[in-house]
Amino acid sequence: MAGATADAALITAARGRPTTEVPVWFMRQAGRSLPEYRALRAGGAMLDACFDTDLVTEITLQPVRRHGVDAAILFSDIVVPLRAAGVAVTIEAGVGPVMADPVRDAAAVARIGELGDTGSIEAAVTALTRQLGSTPLIGFCGAPFTLASYLVEGGPSREHPTTKALMWGQPAVWQELLERVADLCGEFLRRQVLAGASAVQIFDSWAGTLNRADYERFVRPYTERVLAHIADLPVPRIHFGVGTGELLSAMALPQVDVVGVDFRVSLADGIARIGAGHSVQGNLAPAALLAPPAVIRERTAAIIRQGATARGHIMNLGHGVLPHTDAEVITDLVAWIHEEGPAIRAGALSNPAAGDGKVGA
Amino acid sequence: MAGATADAALITAARGRPTTEVPVWFMRQAGRSLPEYRALRAGGAMLDACFDTDLVTEITLQPVRRHGVDAAILFSDIVVPLRAAGVAVTIEAGVGPVMADPVRDAAAVARIGELGDTGSIEAAVTALTRQLGSTPLIGFCGAPFTLASYLVEGGPSREHPTTKALMWGQPAVWQELLERVADLCGEFLRRQVLAGASAVQIFDSWAGTLNRADYERFVRPYTERVLAHIADLPVPRIHFGVGTGELLSAMALPQVDVVGVDFRVSLADGIARIGAGHSVQGNLAPAALLAPPAVIRERTAAIIRQGATARGHIMNLGHGVLPHTDAEVITDLVAWIHEEGPAIRAGALSNPAAGDGKVGA
Repeated sequence: MAGATADAALITAARGRPTTEVPVWFMRQAGRSLPEYRALRAGGAMLDACFDTDLVTEITLQPVRRHGVDAAILFSDIVVPLRAAGVAVTIEAGVGPVMADPVRDAAAVARIGELGDTGSIEAAVTALTRQLGSTPLIGFCGAPFTLASYLVEGGPSREHPTTKALMWGQPAVWQELLERVADLCGEFLRRQVLAGASAVQIFDSWAGTLNRADYERFVRPYTERVLAHIADLPVPRIHFGVGTGELLSAMALPQVDVVGVDFRVSLADGIARIGAGHSVQGNLAPAALLAPPAVIRERTAAIIRQGATARGHIMNLGHGVLPHTDAEVITDLVAWIHEEGPAIRAGALSNPAAGDGKVGA
Repeated sequence: MAGATADAALITAARGRPTTEVPVWFMRQAGRSLPEYRALRAGGAMLDACFDTDLVTEITLQPVRRHGVDAAILFSDIVVPLRAAGVAVTIEAGVGPVMADPVRDAAAVARIGELGDTGSIEAAVTALTRQLGSTPLIGFCGAPFTLASYLVEGGPSREHPTTKALMWGQPAVWQELLERVADLCGEFLRRQVLAGASAVQIFDSWAGTLNRADYERFVRPYTERVLAHIADLPVPRIHFGVGTGELLSAMALPQVDVVGVDFRVSLADGIARIGAGHSVQGNLAPAALLAPPAVIRERTAAIIRQGATARGHIMNLGHGVLPHTDAEVITDLVAWIHEEGPAIRAGALSNPAAGDGKVGA
């Protein structure tokens, strides 16, 4: 597995080996910003689409075909492993994941089953790796804290108060919940890699709502448990969370190759916190794609210059593509990064003062 | 003005002079967590309440009366100065502020008028300072970035994409917009202080969506412009924004006395970033108030210990009280802080290792 992609720039950068290219992909590159996605998905339920081999394959390929990005990311949703474990969850348009029965006590935790059949998704992964050739497919799963917060709150939440009250007030229930969820996530990732994914990204949407001490005590051990499920599989691991400026050093686990940096943090600061042992990914503000082309390029160049000082740098946004983004803007930016990125990076390396992070990026 | 409160613990701590007491108040202490507030507000429109002298006075006093906190904060809403300038804005339940006409070009900016009549609010301030006696009243306004983001987006937003696209893409329009909004905020604060407020808090709800370079270039000059309106008035200034871990050093302006720290940042880290020239405020996680009493007290004690190392520390949450918080929990916590806080702080000062921030707070 993953042999065809071993020399891909994204894999090389993730491993911390030198690349002249600046590999680029976009979180949420598959999805609402693409007219061909909106046409394909019209009317169907999100979670049904995530278990449909043909839809997953086609939606995952769309942005690679259109933009020429350097990686595909499996079209999925963070709650897919919960659905595959028999949890009653739906995704409501304009709301997000909604649980029929929120999980708030030991009995409810005990009812969370093991990961059931995901054969339709594995079939999509296999079809994708065949069609993608030398372009890596990134497998995807949510992190245990984020999934647990959906289970406990019963749906999306800004401050996750019920989740935190459970975490702080009933630590034994919390531990059991997070272990079960971590095993679902880990097994789901493992199946994706065994089916052919060349890399994985663990996405902790809501970890940024915690301070570092809480993250280290109540969350990180379970993300490590996810990683243990794929410890024997030779694929780079990317770890990203939104608003995690305070957590970057704690998220830079030894088992992780790449840490994604949120757009609120200067990439130079992110690199300093993450350290020399990891590559970085990011971190153009998604809103920058709505600004004039000159602004987009100036900010992208500043990020490439800062990224040149990291062990390896994968260009990306610092959060997902916003729904109203013009797809052509992304296509143009990818071409521009492929054309100009190597020279910008080389310039920063020969003149390090240019990459000092003073330019707002 | 403010003579009766000159020796209040909150004012003393804000000035950076030693206090034995640990002054405490809660952001959003007035409002939805109080049954007497819900009874009073039933049926009325939020913005109408903010201009009703008797309602503002009563709602501002309720938490002081019930909890015995060390400060009142003027009951207001961030968009009050916009309404007072003739902007068509309403607050929709479950949504937030909604603008009839979003502001996205120079012509719309030019239509924003000067601050009109706020006599009913000034009358409330005067009545409050008389009734509060030696308890300080904190005046309140939103910061220019936050108000501008509501004007540009037309309502609440997670990522403020239109605001940022305007900021980056049309800097001259942005400057004119922010200057006008800053003058509204500054004049509104000035009137509150002249009517009797003993301190002010500038609340930048959404600044945390920017990285530091953008904050310093596109936002901070206008917050400084707000502060210039009250430069001659001898009241402490508190500056707080949500999710501003990356911005704390930039928010610690020389014209500011106290920087509020978001709950995602350890207070020890916040103090390090803010420096010795400012006092700090915060930063218990609002969700902690939903946890068992022992957890609340342990986390509060850890924050008081960390706060002991600052120039001055005002105990507070690291964001506003959550709507479903049990009011009795707040009352009990205030009593506990008044009773135990001085000894906890003294212990931390005689044994600094205890205040190292290692306890998750």
